[in-house]
Amino acid sequence: MTSPGPRLVVLAGGVGAARFLRGLVAARPAAEVTVVGNTGDDIEVYGLHVSPDLDTVLYSLAGLADLERGWGLRGESWEARAAMERLGGPTWFQLGDRDLATHLWRTERLRRGLALSRVTAELAERLRLPVTLLPMTDQRVTTRVVTADGRDLHVQEYFVQEGCRPEIARVHYAGLERARPAPGVLAAIEAADAVVVAPSNPIMSIGPILALPGVRAAVRAQATVVAVSPIVAGAAIKGPAVAMLRAAGWEPTARGVAEGYQDCVSRFVLDDRDAALAPAVEELGVRARVTDTLMVDLPAAVHLAEITLAAADL
Amino acid sequence: MTSPGPRLVVLAGGVGAARFLRGLVAARPAAEVTVVGNTGDDIEVYGLHVSPDLDTVLYSLAGLADLERGWGLRGESWEARAAMERLGGPTWFQLGDRDLATHLWRTERLRRGLALSRVTAELAERLRLPVTLLPMTDQRVTTRVVTADGRDLHVQEYFVQEGCRPEIARVHYAGLERARPAPGVLAAIEAADAVVVAPSNPIMSIGPILALPGVRAAVRAQATVVAVSPIVAGAAIKGPAVAMLRAAGWEPTARGVAEGYQDCVSRFVLDDRDAALAPAVEELGVRARVTDTLMVDLPAAVHLAEITLAAADL
Repeated sequence: MTSPGPRLVVLAGGVGAARFLRGLVAARPAAEVTVVGNTGDDIEVYGLHVSPDLDTVLYSLAGLADLERGWGLRGESWEARAAMERLGGPTWFQLGDRDLATHLWRTERLRRGLALSRVTAELAERLRLPVTLLPMTDQRVTTRVVTADGRDLHVQEYFVQEGCRPEIARVHYAGLERARPAPGVLAAIEAADAVVVAPSNPIMSIGPILALPGVRAAVRAQATVVAVSPIVAGAAIKGPAVAMLRAAGWEPTARGVAEGYQDCVSRFVLDDRDAALAPAVEELGVRARVTDTLMVDLPAAVHLAEITLAAADL
Repeated sequence: MTSPGPRLVVLAGGVGAARFLRGLVAARPAAEVTVVGNTGDDIEVYGLHVSPDLDTVLYSLAGLADLERGWGLRGESWEARAAMERLGGPTWFQLGDRDLATHLWRTERLRRGLALSRVTAELAERLRLPVTLLPMTDQRVTTRVVTADGRDLHVQEYFVQEGCRPEIARVHYAGLERARPAPGVLAAIEAADAVVVAPSNPIMSIGPILALPGVRAAVRAQATVVAVSPIVAGAAIKGPAVAMLRAAGWEPTARGVAEGYQDCVSRFVLDDRDAALAPAVEELGVRARVTDTLMVDLPAAVHLAEITLAAADL
């Protein structure tokens, strides 16, 4: 008789989390893994409900992702986008032809009144996702970036349309006051052997999840919570994490991330390049573990998953 | 100084009408042509508003149509559909990748509250349509087929999904009681030098247009109305016209079509193969003109357009 793996809950954003999860499900039984995915960057494009982070996890774990480009589907084509461009429609947010099927399907189901969590479970089943994937909430919570020049942008507008160029005054999560965690989120956190905070943008991806009523408290109540630093040598692997951390008043280093998570995280995995910061992390009362966090390929991701589980005594 | 062409209004369905119109705009100045397009077969697919007949006219006159297949766009690809199939979504109604852009664009504009006539005008402008294209109505009127076994099917379900196999008990136009002609339809008919009823299915394509309040009367008040028979030698060039004519109590011949249109049509173009029916058409008080109506290529369509205009003394 084989024992099942540890029950793990992973708080996840997009690309970094998806890479980490590919390593995790190679290292441990996927059936025991519940991913709580950020939906703060969900956006309506041509009237379609697009969930970039959920889809990145879906496609990655279903073996469909374009790993080189880092987002979207492998072998994707762009005919609909080219035709939309000819019509003069907005094309800043790129939707591939195959990807469109996901959004059409999701949007049609949501319009029928089904909850995002239900629709996500259906997509996961149809794409044979090996893990349980829960959106953080069934309500609409949107991460927005207020720029120094006073504009209040959807995070995808800031990220994709504006190329992360505008100076950030602050980041806020619109809709939070009407939102609650999706069914199963709090129960999964409570029943988990450990909670893992994936190497995702703390403000853009993890922040919205922790901001939902009850989530931060449930994570804090967990004995074993391990976060993997998304910051290496003072820089994000990808994306605007540093500017966002600064705007949120966090020190834009691995130590700063550990400090921001300090109230709910007991273990912290940081990169070899930041080994000198490990003592400062430990001073925060967070147990530090140093390893290569870059995940340049699947074996590297498996290795990071193993080290993360070891940091959680699993 | 060149004189403008005659002001023509063409009542149009899908493929047959589009072929005829390609001939017409090669024969006469397109700027003077207003097409009133059937929207009775409009359908929601994956939550998108699809207007098959309007799009067939749009794509054909914009030079984008797949003339061999008879519908959709030339060089179309089907990646979204294949992906939808993998998700287990409905794929009976085929939407190509480029075609999707049209539907996404239209649906998004309609959801913002714009009228179908406005959105159609925008699409026509963006695709550089040489004619004015008006949907018959801005309201939702749906042609439905009641089958002998008691099912009430959307005409596209009957046509595409059921392959026109079920026996038809009757055809009805749902939503007619709340519908009125789209802005410009009655005015165009009244101001026209002639109205042309394209060689389209009289029940499925032309019937819904004529059934709108005021349209049949406006056409009847026109001195010159010429219809082109969609029935040749007792058969439809394409589609279920014969079964529909029978169900509607029309004789499924060119003469039967002339009889059904008799109250509002003064001239009738029928095929060489039906030359023997010309006297019977004339007995209805409708002036008959016999020619080759098959439109096997563009020159044949131009020829049919010329003969049709001649039948209208234009």
